[in-house]
Amino acid sequence: MGKNKGKKVEAITPRDVDFARWYTDVISKTEMVDYAPVKGFMVIRPYGYAIWENIQKLYDAKFKATGHQNMYFPLLIPENMLQKEAEHVEGFAPEVAWVTEGGGKKLNERLAIRPTSETIICSMYSKWLNSYRQLPFLYNQWANVVRWEKTTRPFLRTSEFLWQEGHTLHETAEEAQEETMRMLGIYREVAEKDLAIPMVVGRKSESEKFAGAAATYTMEALMHDGQALQSGTSHNLGQHFTKAFDITYLDRNNEQQYPYHTSWGVSTRLIGGLIMVHGDDNGLVLPPHIAPIQVAIIPIAAHKPGVLDAAQDLKKRLEGRFKVTLDDSDNSPGWKFNQWEMKGVPIRIELGPRDLENNQCVLARRDNGEKIPASLDDIEGTVGDLLETIQQNLYDKALKAREEKTSTAENMDEFKQRLAENPGFVKANWCGDPACEDKIHEETGASCRCIPFDDEQEVIGDGSCVCCGKHADKMAYFARAY
Amino acid sequence: MGKNKGKKVEAITPRDVDFARWYTDVISKTEMVDYAPVKGFMVIRPYGYAIWENIQKLYDAKFKATGHQNMYFPLLIPENMLQKEAEHVEGFAPEVAWVTEGGGKKLNERLAIRPTSETIICSMYSKWLNSYRQLPFLYNQWANVVRWEKTTRPFLRTSEFLWQEGHTLHETAEEAQEETMRMLGIYREVAEKDLAIPMVVGRKSESEKFAGAAATYTMEALMHDGQALQSGTSHNLGQHFTKAFDITYLDRNNEQQYPYHTSWGVSTRLIGGLIMVHGDDNGLVLPPHIAPIQVAIIPIAAHKPGVLDAAQDLKKRLEGRFKVTLDDSDNSPGWKFNQWEMKGVPIRIELGPRDLENNQCVLARRDNGEKIPASLDDIEGTVGDLLETIQQNLYDKALKAREEKTSTAENMDEFKQRLAENPGFVKANWCGDPACEDKIHEETGASCRCIPFDDEQEVIGDGSCVCCGKHADKMAYFARAY
Repeated sequence: MGKNKGKKVEAITPRDVDFARWYTDVISKTEMVDYAPVKGFMVIRPYGYAIWENIQKLYDAKFKATGHQNMYFPLLIPENMLQKEAEHVEGFAPEVAWVTEGGGKKLNERLAIRPTSETIICSMYSKWLNSYRQLPFLYNQWANVVRWEKTTRPFLRTSEFLWQEGHTLHETAEEAQEETMRMLGIYREVAEKDLAIPMVVGRKSESEKFAGAAATYTMEALMHDGQALQSGTSHNLGQHFTKAFDITYLDRNNEQQYPYHTSWGVSTRLIGGLIMVHGDDNGLVLPPHIAPIQVAIIPIAAHKPGVLDAAQDLKKRLEGRFKVTLDDSDNSPGWKFNQWEMKGVPIRIELGPRDLENNQCVLARRDNGEKIPASLDDIEGTVGDLLETIQQNLYDKALKAREEKTSTAENMDEFKQRLAENPGFVKANWCGDPACEDKIHEETGASCRCIPFDDEQEVIGDGSCVCCGKHADKMAYFARAY
Repeated sequence: MGKNKGKKVEAITPRDVDFARWYTDVISKTEMVDYAPVKGFMVIRPYGYAIWENIQKLYDAKFKATGHQNMYFPLLIPENMLQKEAEHVEGFAPEVAWVTEGGGKKLNERLAIRPTSETIICSMYSKWLNSYRQLPFLYNQWANVVRWEKTTRPFLRTSEFLWQEGHTLHETAEEAQEETMRMLGIYREVAEKDLAIPMVVGRKSESEKFAGAAATYTMEALMHDGQALQSGTSHNLGQHFTKAFDITYLDRNNEQQYPYHTSWGVSTRLIGGLIMVHGDDNGLVLPPHIAPIQVAIIPIAAHKPGVLDAAQDLKKRLEGRFKVTLDDSDNSPGWKFNQWEMKGVPIRIELGPRDLENNQCVLARRDNGEKIPASLDDIEGTVGDLLETIQQNLYDKALKAREEKTSTAENMDEFKQRLAENPGFVKANWCGDPACEDKIHEETGASCRCIPFDDEQEVIGDGSCVCCGKHADKMAYFARAY
């Protein structure tokens, strides 16, 4: 007898009762992640890591298709190197973990565990680059980074996380800007098409940009609780680092020049977004493109003749095209339904004696609970189509939810009222003055998430700044954020 | 005019003049790797990293096919945790890099950057494991590790390297032993079939085994200079760690038990082996299964009408099945020949006006210099077959080289003479006494690389120990080693 026979899956705290507890329940009960012995660090368990592998595969293919190659740079950065770009060190130094002893000896110089790799990569680029003929440099690395954080939550903010960081060099400012936009576009494309998370994109304000960047661009997602999640950033670094690290090359006119520089990254944080955008009170809801298991087959009355064989046949038919599991454990069907539902598997297939008599099975959709009888004849085609339908539906649902949680405000009173009534994005005109940005943050808790690009700009009301009332050139998205 | 037009590729030091310099020349001129700012650390450049990605892909597929899943454990291990298994800490403590400051504060406890992850993984396993129903635990991680080394050489021994480490738990000692052997088998299979490196496998002596293991098994390769390279190890850890970390479960009889434990790893060191086994005085020689570029197309008299178009057509035909590059730079064909030869590309295809007239091209083999005219009609098939021929030939050549460098010795004089005349493996009977092992090492510089399994055991001479002359149960492989 199965040890879980008859047991119910332990309940998950409802989302709208306590969203933070819901999140913690989901990530632990689904065994995606666990807390490490060192505070603020996480262990990514197989179910979480398989999602990360899928995310990696999708992005890595697009990086390579756009001419980027992978490299690996060292984990440890000498302190003097981290200090070369003034804004950069100011931004990152407070979060650094320092190695001070190695091989039984105290080191002469502290070594930073990379919080990001601009400095060490630039030190190598300055050695490698000689001529314009070598440009562009289009490189990326997949790596772990450490940033000592005070308040942490698995995937969303941890002292160590996994990410990729692209680092490119270009002849002209225009090419660097194009690259910065290209990578933001790739980030958004995979996030929307595969993670089914609609993104708002735009430029970061001066106070929110990357330490050392000329400009930072971001994609921002809205979570179920109305808080925003910065989900990927692409930085135009101008010549800040190339000058600090004396990276020069001979240009087409045989003159020494500093190249233009970009960097861009997405991280395991995306997994947190995936959970908080799609999940519901029964647990995870995973988009088919990213789910480690797309189809779970559950035999009904498995002891009846032919059922288990038919379930195994079905698995064989499907597993060439899809990621399939057959749950032939001795737990009860009801327990299995809950279990695979909690794990967010897009389609559950139920197959029992009566189904077999009718040459059919039942497909249960995780995204909307619908149960669909389907002939076994073209089950591969039916499942394939349904997975795409679910993928699209999850995106549409998430977009609708975001739109419902997005409001506009013309003055501070409206701003506060909108956030109180309907937490989410507030679109408001902003004059660009950091004093207004600070005041908005102090009074509402919302930060400037991004200033949309011109093609997505709108004028709210009469075009005056939501805070100071002066003329505002731009509208921005504000929200409380993770 | 191309900046390299007319230039010759700078010469590589011949292997037999100075093997160490040859190695350094090859890895730097082919841009596989560079030296990092912190001594002993390396930067893996795209050409080196692409090989690592290929190695990862091959092993990862086999790990998954044998039921293993990937996870990710934290980089930092608290000092008290590293100390729980006595032999383990003794073995690794001298090589540890310690984090003592984080987030602007001195830490209460030093944190080790993982030199290997047995301890932190066991601390989590003890939390996760409850019942025999959960066993086996079959997990792996791909990660970076740090071991502070005094003498380093890129890929071969570096203070940081990339690897995978498998960590499994089992109900019985037999299952753990089977797993240990299964993974050694997988290591060997990929190494021999894909890296084309023949391996000697067997058990490590007590003094050479992993710190904390019950038994360590190894695959050992022989480099061109006659030195051995430990290329992958699989450890049966018994219950050493499961007891130290109090990992218990309820067995089939409802009794508390300690599970049996294995760990196994291969690393970026394999790239060093690949270079030193196959490379020659012209540079790298890469086995087709692992080469980032399998075919380099060089147009001859590229300015003549039709040549460049035909080269591009050829590239299009081949690139669906193979990893192909077309070198249409304005360097001279001779320079290109040298360049791609140095990079170890298995097949160079030359295509000039006269070839086109005859509907043919010329295939130049990197492994033996042979030039083969081939019809363009079934060029895909011809190239595919030739790549497999080259793959096999590289293995055969390497095996022959190893056999020529393997000798036997019945006493210490013979041992020294063999090593002096023909550096390589010396097979000799060994009584198993560590004193003899030490003496052999002191007098010859050769260490015990492994004790072959019974099916590959031989008796040398009269079966007496090469050192003390007493009866020896086993024969072992000795060599100087990296």
